[in-house]
Amino acid sequence: MRIAELSRRTGVPIPTIKYYTREGLLPPGERTGPNQAQYGEAHVRRLKLARALVEVGGLSIASAREVLSLMFSTGVSQLDTIGKAQYVMTAPRDYTEDEAWQEAVAEVDRLLEERGWQVKPTNPARRTLADALATMRRLGQDDFAKVLGSYADAAERVAADEVKTLLHRGDLDSIVEGVVIWTAMGDTILASLRRLAHEAESTRLFGDF
Amino acid sequence: MRIAELSRRTGVPIPTIKYYTREGLLPPGERTGPNQAQYGEAHVRRLKLARALVEVGGLSIASAREVLSLMFSTGVSQLDTIGKAQYVMTAPRDYTEDEAWQEAVAEVDRLLEERGWQVKPTNPARRTLADALATMRRLGQDDFAKVLGSYADAAERVAADEVKTLLHRGDLDSIVEGVVIWTAMGDTILASLRRLAHEAESTRLFGDF
Repeated sequence: MRIAELSRRTGVPIPTIKYYTREGLLPPGERTGPNQAQYGEAHVRRLKLARALVEVGGLSIASAREVLSLMFSTGVSQLDTIGKAQYVMTAPRDYTEDEAWQEAVAEVDRLLEERGWQVKPTNPARRTLADALATMRRLGQDDFAKVLGSYADAAERVAADEVKTLLHRGDLDSIVEGVVIWTAMGDTILASLRRLAHEAESTRLFGDF
Repeated sequence: MRIAELSRRTGVPIPTIKYYTREGLLPPGERTGPNQAQYGEAHVRRLKLARALVEVGGLSIASAREVLSLMFSTGVSQLDTIGKAQYVMTAPRDYTEDEAWQEAVAEVDRLLEERGWQVKPTNPARRTLADALATMRRLGQDDFAKVLGSYADAAERVAADEVKTLLHRGDLDSIVEGVVIWTAMGDTILASLRRLAHEAESTRLFGDF
């Protein structure tokens, strides 16, 4: 199909398609003329995925590029892809190695230990979590420690249910695709639900304000 | 204090302080000379908060500006501030009003109904959630519906515990500050914990891969 058809099929505007292609999120179509290219079903699928990861999942272009190339690369085992994709989808950030940071790192280690969560030292989520917890300390939000357990319970239940449900698919390729999509979308879904629950709880306690 | 001292106290680089001031996240210091300004404790507090919201909370500069001006504006009641800040911290996004979208909107209404969550129609999280659920449908992830309940349970427990813990503070100003900081940081903390739990669960099922 031509780019116009690809745009119609996916709902992605042509300039965005060209941008994604330039950024390596989407492989170029097959040249059929000086200003013409043909696209196939693989493009439709990958374009929808790229758009979802970037626009709803909030991944950076760089992360989306890496995740997509992992997913569509042959030669990489699917379990490898899952592991790598998960790590790519955790944006690393700068952090200050002050006292709050050191305490937070220890706090994360303790939490993983207590819960019996086996997590590689290289999992970037350890750092992201420690960074966020350190920020809480720096901002004097020490009572947040009281709710960290609820957070971990929530994450544990959700993750277990997600893994179980994805495994029911059987087919490994669609499991891998699910892991990537659910990991990215799940953050947005959980964040929205938490906000809705906050308003619901406040309204329950204080009435309509 | 001078800007160098402000930078030392907060760990925020001077160029970032100038950028935040230009963007209206931080009020300018009191001019004491052609190229000199004095900053006070209020600047230290607000600068730490601004940096946290932007760099760890992932808020856009625009959202952070709005939240901060709400928090530090007199005249607005604190309950008002909480409500408004929560809404600002839910980034609205474009969406396609296709069939998947319509179904998702209905799905969100049903979910709120079933759970007895009283949420205003204007809460932007309704739209964000519907958008993410529609994306899941468009990507053929229909089995995600099976885990949505776990997500809602998780959000409900976390939100209830957060509200309870924050109310223990008593002082309304620090409750408001907590709501803002926890809402922003909470997303990052929950997302990291979910990733750690994903790896822990996979390792539990498949061993080290």
